[in-house]
Amino acid sequence: MTFTLDDLATLIASRRNDSASTSYTKSLFDAGTPRIAKKLGEEAVETVIAAMEGDRKAIVSETADVLYHLLVLLEAQDIPLSEVVAELGRRTAQSGLAEKASRGAGE
Amino acid sequence: MTFTLDDLATLIASRRNDSASTSYTKSLFDAGTPRIAKKLGEEAVETVIAAMEGDRKAIVSETADVLYHLLVLLEAQDIPLSEVVAELGRRTAQSGLAEKASRGAGE
Amino acid sequence: MTFTLDDLATLIASRRNDSASTSYTKSLFDAGTPRIAKKLGEEAVETVIAAMEGDRKAIVSETADVLYHLLVLLEAQDIPLSEVVAELGRRTAQSGLAEKASRGAGE
Amino acid sequence: MTFTLDDLATLIASRRNDSASTSYTKSLFDAGTPRIAKKLGEEAVETVIAAMEGDRKAIVSETADVLYHLLVLLEAQDIPLSEVVAELGRRTAQSGLAEKASRGAGE
Repeated sequence: MTFTLDDLATLIASRRNDSASTSYTKSLFDAGTPRIAKKLGEEAVETVIAAMEGDRKAIVSETADVLYHLLVLLEAQDIPLSEVVAELGRRTAQSGLAEKASRGAGE
Repeated sequence: MTFTLDDLATLIASRRNDSASTSYTKSLFDAGTPRIAKKLGEEAVETVIAAMEGDRKAIVSETADVLYHLLVLLEAQDIPLSEVVAELGRRTAQSGLAEKASRGAGE
Repeated sequence: MTFTLDDLATLIASRRNDSASTSYTKSLFDAGTPRIAKKLGEEAVETVIAAMEGDRKAIVSETADVLYHLLVLLEAQDIPLSEVVAELGRRTAQSGLAEKASRGAGE
Repeated sequence: MTFTLDDLATLIASRRNDSASTSYTKSLFDAGTPRIAKKLGEEAVETVIAAMEGDRKAIVSETADVLYHLLVLLEAQDIPLSEVVAELGRRTAQSGLAEKASRGAGE
């Protein structure tokens, strides 16, 4: 079975609720939102630099860091990833309609 | 059927390869990596601020922006999202083993 | 006479207190700290990208943007620039002593 | 005599050119622009968070970090701080004229 972002979100939630956990994830929840937000911001900066360097391996590693901390931030705010993806789905539907309209009725 | 991040990644790739597209997505690919990286960094900053404000609606909107620009950045570098998720799966397996070990052999 | 950062800080403070001002500076104070912080973060991201591109002209322009928004942020918090520079002076004195010590007593 | 940003810039330049230096400053120059840019971006994120928290002491500390790394970045690109401040002076003169004009000729 393939590992998915939903699997990671589930695991992050379980770490949050496991008082015995010694994980990095648990330590982030204990430190709270300012710490989680700081890490997300820093990993985004590192992604920017990896992208500017065109360093493929670093981009994979840094975008993984961004995704992980994004999921921790969402969990800390009790926001399911599905809600964010649904928002992206709504925007996509709208932008698709907008582009269709700009190309004219013949399409 | 539920909209997924993979659907969004597929759509982003199709926009990239559609020379007639007038979409924002296409304009990002035309502008290139510095522009895409800049947008990713800026959306991360806005996510940090939304999180610090505890503004749920803004967090959903800003994390959606981060995810979208992250997918555009990956596509621009020809890196499939699945490769990043697989990296997260590898790390998760390792950290799970590490935590297990730290709790002792009885587990 | 040469224009200095202190001159800019003085001007920023005067704009803040001028209710009739239609300046960008005044609009930042009216929007408040989240907006000022967002702009500072965004300009820092642009500085990172300009530096990675090695684009001298862009670096001058983007670091100017960072300095300007940093002064606005300090003014919004009623922190004089001199207090930050004094903090840098203290650190410099300490690091100088530390380095001297690491080189040995003969110096 | 009061410590100034120009003093700090001079000190940073002297560390850069001192092959025997074991300072943090020297280690940044040795690591190069991507490392310096990364630190600048990270300190900006921390400034954003300190500002959102309204933590006066943290704001002084984090803006000091931003200023220090900004000066290191400029030195690494052989750009004098005075060039950036002159750019700010030019903009200030222009925006002052623009605001005057918007208020009408009677001023």
